Amino acid sequence: MATISPPEDPESDPRVKAVFDDIRATRGTDFINNVWRYLAFDPALLEEVWRDVKAVLATPSLLDPKVKEMIYAAVSIANGCDYCTHSHLAAARARGMTAAEQAELMRIVGTAAKTNHILNAIRPPIDAAFLAEE
Amino acid sequence: MATISPPEDPESDPRVKAVFDDIRATRGTDFINNVWRYLAFDPALLEEVWRDVKAVLATPSLLDPKVKEMIYAAVSIANGCDYCTHSHLAAARARGMTAAEQAELMRIVGTAAKTNHILNAIRPPIDAAFLAEE
Amino acid sequence: MATISPPEDPESDPRVKAVFDDIRATRGTDFINNVWRYLAFDPALLEEVWRDVKAVLATPSLLDPKVKEMIYAAVSIANGCDYCTHSHLAAARARGMTAAEQAELMRIVGTAAKTNHILNAIRPPIDAAFLAEE
Amino acid sequence: MATISPPEDPESDPRVKAVFDDIRATRGTDFINNVWRYLAFDPALLEEVWRDVKAVLATPSLLDPKVKEMIYAAVSIANGCDYCTHSHLAAARARGMTAAEQAELMRIVGTAAKTNHILNAIRPPIDAAFLAEE
Amino acid sequence: MATISPPEDPESDPRVKAVFDDIRATRGTDFINNVWRYLAFDPALLEEVWRDVKAVLATPSLLDPKVKEMIYAAVSIANGCDYCTHSHLAAARARGMTAAEQAELMRIVGTAAKTNHILNAIRPPIDAAFLAEE
Amino acid sequence: MATISPPEDPESDPRVKAVFDDIRATRGTDFINNVWRYLAFDPALLEEVWRDVKAVLATPSLLDPKVKEMIYAAVSIANGCDYCTHSHLAAARARGMTAAEQAELMRIVGTAAKTNHILNAIRPPIDAAFLAEE
Repeated sequence: MATISPPEDPESDPRVKAVFDDIRATRGTDFINNVWRYLAFDPALLEEVWRDVKAVLATPSLLDPKVKEMIYAAVSIANGCDYCTHSHLAAARARGMTAAEQAELMRIVGTAAKTNHILNAIRPPIDAAFLAEE
Repeated sequence: MATISPPEDPESDPRVKAVFDDIRATRGTDFINNVWRYLAFDPALLEEVWRDVKAVLATPSLLDPKVKEMIYAAVSIANGCDYCTHSHLAAARARGMTAAEQAELMRIVGTAAKTNHILNAIRPPIDAAFLAEE
Repeated sequence: MATISPPEDPESDPRVKAVFDDIRATRGTDFINNVWRYLAFDPALLEEVWRDVKAVLATPSLLDPKVKEMIYAAVSIANGCDYCTHSHLAAARARGMTAAEQAELMRIVGTAAKTNHILNAIRPPIDAAFLAEE
Repeated sequence: MATISPPEDPESDPRVKAVFDDIRATRGTDFINNVWRYLAFDPALLEEVWRDVKAVLATPSLLDPKVKEMIYAAVSIANGCDYCTHSHLAAARARGMTAAEQAELMRIVGTAAKTNHILNAIRPPIDAAFLAEE
Repeated sequence: MATISPPEDPESDPRVKAVFDDIRATRGTDFINNVWRYLAFDPALLEEVWRDVKAVLATPSLLDPKVKEMIYAAVSIANGCDYCTHSHLAAARARGMTAAEQAELMRIVGTAAKTNHILNAIRPPIDAAFLAEE
Repeated sequence: MATISPPEDPESDPRVKAVFDDIRATRGTDFINNVWRYLAFDPALLEEVWRDVKAVLATPSLLDPKVKEMIYAAVSIANGCDYCTHSHLAAARARGMTAAEQAELMRIVGTAAKTNHILNAIRPPIDAAFLAEE
């Protein structure tokens, strides 16, 4: 399926091992999902993507962890990323999203897409009230 | 700018007036923003879009109103809808989103887009753990 | 606004003049809209794009000219192309699309986008009945 | 494959049964395709999506049923929805779209995408002639 | 998987055989990949797509063949085309793209997507210095 | 136009001043374009985006600086980012992209988009030859 091959023994590379160890410690689980095993084909890229995802999703911030995963999943759905949709919906469920909330997420995403397309068809001028005051 | 002309006196049509009245009552303001004034060119379409948006964003549900507007804005950003991005970021601010939360929203949306593209380039198999059990 | 400058006297280039003449003859009008004036910065690209658009939209085929412009506009809306949305909705109107049909087009495009996003969130297996028999 | 599990016995829920019965009656067939079986995980979402799709595609309107399915498929292709592309191309074929018309649809969608991208690269000003008169 | 069936004996059609012969001669290989076998369902569409791809990717031009495949792959990733992502990354590798260059491509594509989304959220005015002088 | 206001005196914040100084030093110019002035509303986001863009575009790597800007622009065009399209086409020109190369870039991007859409309509199986050997 994939366009690159994951290394057979990724943790023989100390940079990969360091990232995998941090993933396990941060998440409190031994499970390393496929995105990390495939990204290990280039340790620098692996380090960069993990740094980014950890900063956004695994670091305390203003927004609730469940909400952050739901926003992340919404963008992944809109961008048509199959893997990301599965992994971030699963992460949102792991952080407490119920089936009813998942249905509500789909309703918001679907309705947003509908009005996005209708307004991209109409192209009305933006109300002055919505512009940041400069 | 727009691809259709808004009617000059939209509320002379009783179907349009009924929608505008409901918008004013639901939101507690006299302000009717451009999307509704332009959609008034087709009263049935106006009724349908307002019904959808009201159901998702102006009806109590499981998710917080501010969070719903942030998810809606995230999808609008991903879909490149200029009008929707402005209107739903403004709505999120009106429901309490701070500038720091708006910056966090941009960080989540941007990082999601980055990993969406990288995983659409790699196309790794989806972990069994992420699939709904059937 | 644009990322390239249109040539000041485009028809001084005989390749550009030949394309512009064919546009005028094909459409039965002297009006050359901006896309062609800007594409004239590279006569080979101008020739290629006009060849493509003429073959699809200005050549008798199985589908009705109005329907072809509506499909073209629908894709342009989905791809977020501002110029194309305006020009192909205008072309559809010139071929007889009424305001009510334009509203119906928006309803189809918007509802498709809604279900596109919801099904990209669910990712159900494709029914065998929908696959081409091989 | 999917991110949610379809209920095992969906029609034991009377709301689901009512939707499935209406799908069967509207379409004159016993076949319930996967989208409805998966959406049954949330009866309210199922009702809403069926209401939308029925209104757009299974209700007599200004446009021909075959043309409506072709426009719906065009948007689904542009939005990268695998399931929707399959189901709406199949529906268009069921409403009479020939293989040659399907090829023409692909030519329109592909050419639109090409000019959408080229014009999103050039970003020419929109001709005054294309704007709705206000 | 596919929405159309490839013809069983495509080269029995002389138009298809001519295209396949040209693909083999141009590429110096007997391998005809699936896109051409499926497009053979409509010989005119097959001819058109091969003409386009040959002109862009198999004809000497200003840009390096490897670079052209990398740009082609980048667009395919952004547009979420699974088949195209696989085929054009494979073509880039066949023209010398190393694994490290593929990782760099992913970093560029991912970072571009991140800033694309953040700037589509902010919508800053375009600097006069970036506009083509007119 | 924008959804946030840029700070009036951004360099009064030492974190912003440090980024602006690094932009000026890295690029060898006093010109700070709008994206950085607007991102200054959140110094942490400004630091992050500059770190990302500097690493990808202003740091020696395997690919040529002009080629990197062309790939970046191609993704920005596909994602419909107006600001990014302008800024990265301008950057590519500043690194030596000629008008003829810009026309070739548009031809590649446009043709890729055309085949992306046609193959997302056909959805052929991916040839085994294109899959990474595992």
